Amino acid sequence: MGKRSHWREHPAHALRVDHGFRLESFDAAATPGFEGAQKHAERLMERRGADLAELQERLYAHGRAGGDRSMLLVLQGMDTAGKGGIVRHVLGMVDPQGVASRGFGVPTEEERAHHFLWRIDRALPQAGRIGVFDRSHYEDVLVVRVHGLVPEAVWQGRYSEINEWEAQVAERGTTIVKCALMVSPEEQLNRIEERLERPDKHWKYNPGDLDERAHWPAYMEAYQAVLDRTSTPSAPWHVIPADNKWYARLAVTELLASALESLELGWPQADFDVQAERERIARLRSKEV
Amino acid sequence: MGKRSHWREHPAHALRVDHGFRLESFDAAATPGFEGAQKHAERLMERRGADLAELQERLYAHGRAGGDRSMLLVLQGMDTAGKGGIVRHVLGMVDPQGVASRGFGVPTEEERAHHFLWRIDRALPQAGRIGVFDRSHYEDVLVVRVHGLVPEAVWQGRYSEINEWEAQVAERGTTIVKCALMVSPEEQLNRIEERLERPDKHWKYNPGDLDERAHWPAYMEAYQAVLDRTSTPSAPWHVIPADNKWYARLAVTELLASALESLELGWPQADFDVQAERERIARLRSKEV
Repeated sequence: MGKRSHWREHPAHALRVDHGFRLESFDAAATPGFEGAQKHAERLMERRGADLAELQERLYAHGRAGGDRSMLLVLQGMDTAGKGGIVRHVLGMVDPQGVASRGFGVPTEEERAHHFLWRIDRALPQAGRIGVFDRSHYEDVLVVRVHGLVPEAVWQGRYSEINEWEAQVAERGTTIVKCALMVSPEEQLNRIEERLERPDKHWKYNPGDLDERAHWPAYMEAYQAVLDRTSTPSAPWHVIPADNKWYARLAVTELLASALESLELGWPQADFDVQAERERIARLRSKEV
Repeated sequence: MGKRSHWREHPAHALRVDHGFRLESFDAAATPGFEGAQKHAERLMERRGADLAELQERLYAHGRAGGDRSMLLVLQGMDTAGKGGIVRHVLGMVDPQGVASRGFGVPTEEERAHHFLWRIDRALPQAGRIGVFDRSHYEDVLVVRVHGLVPEAVWQGRYSEINEWEAQVAERGTTIVKCALMVSPEEQLNRIEERLERPDKHWKYNPGDLDERAHWPAYMEAYQAVLDRTSTPSAPWHVIPADNKWYARLAVTELLASALESLELGWPQADFDVQAERERIARLRSKEV
């Protein structure tokens, strides 16, 4: 059957962080829940991409009709984990008018003068949109924790601040889909090296990425704390093995599509009299002939 | 030859507004400069879409490397002319991270309290990005003129204000591509009717569109004034026949791709020592084995 999904277990379950989840025993090359090969994944992704495009249009239509629902995809991951590729290949399947993509780098001076959630809150998607954060407020308990950029008492308090803020955001109508893309150190080195060997990728190469690699164990510890402390019912974490790009892209496509499906949005009802409008058009036509 | 372009004359020339251009003798069903059929256009669009995606990535890379170039696509047109379809199908071919799409509806109270260019200026694309305006500052000399929303002396002054502002924007590194999508009144009525007959399109149906249609001649006069007075060397207008959606989409793809090509952006040079980085990676590998 061409219509087989090849998902043995839905990624919303297979990838969701459960109590007791340990990053140290995580296999970044695995394909949890999926029993097909790459070619099956690619075919399936095309099909679900078409679904995603229609679901996004319904969300947009609802926003235009006064609905308050929106979607926020939060992408975290070590350098080269494929966050940009997710935006390009997954969100690239839907209408750009419905997507607001935002990257969070080192905070500007203005941003540093505010609470760490200030710049994040301002970037939330409008009703009807899919927002994408390439890195996010989680950097404030990841790079900031690893490098001790603020005192421990400050970053320790941020986990509960994040949980409270996300609960409020969800309460106001934004479905939050959090994905941590996990690449193995070996695959990361391959990807860094590939950027070095291709002049058209040099602009993506940053010598600092190799420096950050030296802090791998500290980053894993910081990620483990994020997963332990900020995977909540209103905004659960999904940990996505990212050594196989095709798997990671398919998994995020499915997570987004199923999150949109769960909103059960039909097309908005007409707020005008359809028959009366038909008659207006008929009168216009008869005048023009 | 599968590689034939089917353009007899490049759309940058075929569609560019020349002195003496008259909208009243314009054929919205024509396909200026293009001698192929729809199927040729679709094949060509796919090919040029791939070019566009790479050109956009180069622009983005330049922005990341400190370059100041950006691109702004200004879309104007009567209701149903296909502005949204252009964003969806043309800009949908490139990485969403590189595109900032913005629609300009009726100004908010805050926007009305400012100069008409205030909200426009704030929406300009960052360096490295392609900005898209679905409607724009031209509404301030179109709907505003047709409905007399400000005194004539005010809107009369806006043409030169727009020209000066656009010249400055271009001077700062933004290539402005202005496209007026022109649909015939007959085709517009067909498209409005189609929205009415499809419940999944009701959210796009606005009874006010038929009211606006009654002002068609006044709109054409206002568009003619825009084309006469704001097609400048730094920001020329292209008038795009839009009864055939496939033609309009192909033409805008080609206009954008050729505008990007004219920037002649290579990939940014490495700002690091490639050989030294290779050696760092080799040392890391030898340690890991």
